[in-house]
Amino acid sequence: MSAESQKRVVIVGGGLVGSMAACMFARKQHKVDLYEARGDMRKSNMSAGKSINLALSVRGREALRRIGLEEKLLSHGIPMRARMIHTVDGKLNEILYDPVHNQCIYSVSRKFLNEALITELEQYPNCNIHFHHKMTKLDVDTGDLTFSKQGHEALIEVKGNQQQLIIGADGAHSGVRKCLMSQPLFDFSQTYIEHGYMELCIPPSDDGNYQMEPNFLHIWPRGTFMMIALPNQDRSWTVTLFMPFENFAQLKTPDILLDFFNSTFPDAVPLIGADRLVADFFSRKASSLISIKCRPYHKNNKVLILGDAAHAMVPFYGQGMNAGFEDCCVLDDLMDELEEDFARVLPKFTEVRHEDAQMICDLAMYNYIEMRDLVTKSSFLWRKRLDSFLFSIFPNFWVPLYNAVTFSRFPYRVCVQHKEFQDKIISSIITGGCAVFGLILLYLIGLIILG
Amino acid sequence: MSAESQKRVVIVGGGLVGSMAACMFARKQHKVDLYEARGDMRKSNMSAGKSINLALSVRGREALRRIGLEEKLLSHGIPMRARMIHTVDGKLNEILYDPVHNQCIYSVSRKFLNEALITELEQYPNCNIHFHHKMTKLDVDTGDLTFSKQGHEALIEVKGNQQQLIIGADGAHSGVRKCLMSQPLFDFSQTYIEHGYMELCIPPSDDGNYQMEPNFLHIWPRGTFMMIALPNQDRSWTVTLFMPFENFAQLKTPDILLDFFNSTFPDAVPLIGADRLVADFFSRKASSLISIKCRPYHKNNKVLILGDAAHAMVPFYGQGMNAGFEDCCVLDDLMDELEEDFARVLPKFTEVRHEDAQMICDLAMYNYIEMRDLVTKSSFLWRKRLDSFLFSIFPNFWVPLYNAVTFSRFPYRVCVQHKEFQDKIISSIITGGCAVFGLILLYLIGLIILG
Repeated sequence: MSAESQKRVVIVGGGLVGSMAACMFARKQHKVDLYEARGDMRKSNMSAGKSINLALSVRGREALRRIGLEEKLLSHGIPMRARMIHTVDGKLNEILYDPVHNQCIYSVSRKFLNEALITELEQYPNCNIHFHHKMTKLDVDTGDLTFSKQGHEALIEVKGNQQQLIIGADGAHSGVRKCLMSQPLFDFSQTYIEHGYMELCIPPSDDGNYQMEPNFLHIWPRGTFMMIALPNQDRSWTVTLFMPFENFAQLKTPDILLDFFNSTFPDAVPLIGADRLVADFFSRKASSLISIKCRPYHKNNKVLILGDAAHAMVPFYGQGMNAGFEDCCVLDDLMDELEEDFARVLPKFTEVRHEDAQMICDLAMYNYIEMRDLVTKSSFLWRKRLDSFLFSIFPNFWVPLYNAVTFSRFPYRVCVQHKEFQDKIISSIITGGCAVFGLILLYLIGLIILG
Repeated sequence: MSAESQKRVVIVGGGLVGSMAACMFARKQHKVDLYEARGDMRKSNMSAGKSINLALSVRGREALRRIGLEEKLLSHGIPMRARMIHTVDGKLNEILYDPVHNQCIYSVSRKFLNEALITELEQYPNCNIHFHHKMTKLDVDTGDLTFSKQGHEALIEVKGNQQQLIIGADGAHSGVRKCLMSQPLFDFSQTYIEHGYMELCIPPSDDGNYQMEPNFLHIWPRGTFMMIALPNQDRSWTVTLFMPFENFAQLKTPDILLDFFNSTFPDAVPLIGADRLVADFFSRKASSLISIKCRPYHKNNKVLILGDAAHAMVPFYGQGMNAGFEDCCVLDDLMDELEEDFARVLPKFTEVRHEDAQMICDLAMYNYIEMRDLVTKSSFLWRKRLDSFLFSIFPNFWVPLYNAVTFSRFPYRVCVQHKEFQDKIISSIITGGCAVFGLILLYLIGLIILG
């Protein structure tokens, strides 16, 4: 690459999406500077906040493949091939994710994935990682940035220039987005749901094994709330309880908590252990869940936001990280297609990505209802069976929504269009059937009455 | 009032809603401090930015009545009893606002109204007005405030205390709301529409008269865009052109502008005057229109936002100021009802007001389509006639949506419920009619076929 075509990319945020974007730009030989407010997580036991494990699926895998990390993550991750529904009376029902091709999603550790990305990034001589650098100011017109560095009095200034792109990958509470927000015509919404979540843990058994069937995402759907569990490498399970805040608030004493768990999740209590449950529950607070949409994602040829900074979603479709990684792929493709001209790439990114991101935010919201309630309804299960049947006959034509979202790279809006089309066909068949039945009935009545 | 029961109220923002709220608290004998970033508008020719005139209707009048200013404003305002539709070929069609009771909305000057409120406020010895004080910091937990005062180096600090309420009435880009927004569980959305607006002017005629029929809100509906005109006291008209930004951008030269106006608003060109039109149009820029929703409006017993700070809306229902003034009435009522206990008043305000405010924001968005397009459609005009007929027969039962919003104090959400109920009745009548007709047809066919 010639010196002229080498661009400079400043990335704010070294979480999953920031470090993935950095790897992609580094692969393209640009000069990359990644600034992360926290320290190097490889040197601490701290996780990057937020939830401990993630469900890696096709969109995330594609990004990992491009930077050569897919195999590493798949061999670390634990495949989950079905939902395992736990009823109150202790029955277990499997719902396969992909009855046709038997594809899996993978439970991976956020910390493992983030560390793998940072380590990969260090291989590139054209990339510098600056830990403990917190962005304090950004001028979105000039591209001038200011960082405070932990332990240093003086602020660090990074001057903007024509060849420099700033990527904001600084999460749901993005500082870069806040700077964009003061610009005219910037649409923005943040919505908290009235439910919170708390992470608990099912430890390995005494002989060091999984206490439940691994290779499943376990769900305890209870209508207005639910609990789920994802397997970890160390044979423990990360258990997450999702529930209205007011319900959390009612669980005031160990006795009330145990009564609630014994009557609602009876099979989970011995797995977690009553003592551990009480200790964990009363040492933490329920966290909130936010959904963020905004537009545009860019400012001129200077600033672009990716991942949660652009579209934070509730976690119920397991697509937050996958969608953020797909942002990186979309950007990577546009860089090739539009000859790395930021003035064309950035507006095009907003244009092609905005509707898809809105859609997955909405789908994620909807999927909470599916997971906590619909999975126990026979109408839902019948539709699932019908979808699977049609999918097996027409594998390229009748792709059910969950499969399209999770196991394809169809744009999210196209996944929903497919689903709407399928719904229309099914309801026409039903209406048509009813009409034929009605006509026959009318004919018979006519025959009887009029002889 | 005893010293113990006197509360202290700090109001941030001396626009319409801030000074109205100040008057209401001052009437209740509380100690009021009003801080306004700009200077005293009575000493300058500057308007308070934004649009020059407002449509005062029942909700706004109720607030003015409570502080004794209703008569003053009505005698200043110019009654408008109908929309006057201007077609492209120069025809004029009246659409009465209230064919049954003949009520009017009033075109009032923003500057006149704001000045009247400030002057009224000065009558209260328990109220201090601080001009040129811009809020720079607010701690929503302690209630500590900081203001910068024009021409003074040192910042002015106002300490919070248990008896002190802070009202944020600082408009769509509210600094108080920004501080609330950093709190957990604060929902927020801002949406810009893709249309901008520009104010133009029809001057009085040479002999000092109105150039068009006064007592009307004149509209030039053109499908995807429109122009409106409201009468001023000095017999001029404030003309506002609403149009997609891209259309504004296409009007690049005086010739293109005049071609556009001559073919689209031919009857308006001689009224504005071609020279004046060109001079005005090219000396200004189209402004943007924002819609803001958020929740909650309060923090503990300390902070409350009102008016545009809580629910900025597009101007098409003429309800922005009216809804802001109604906020003041709702707060005034809750203060009485809940014995001035801020810890109960503030959450209750959010609870009772939030849904209504969301609703009027949505209605305002919808009304742009009605004003610029539907008013020219015969289906709309037939429904309007049917509504007016039923309204005249059942004046308490069949109140059309526009009349309920503009000429009643029904909560906005109730206005919409009425409308939905009316729609259901009308569609049942239509469906029922079709069904009866269908059955008769079927019977006749049966007779023919089966003899």
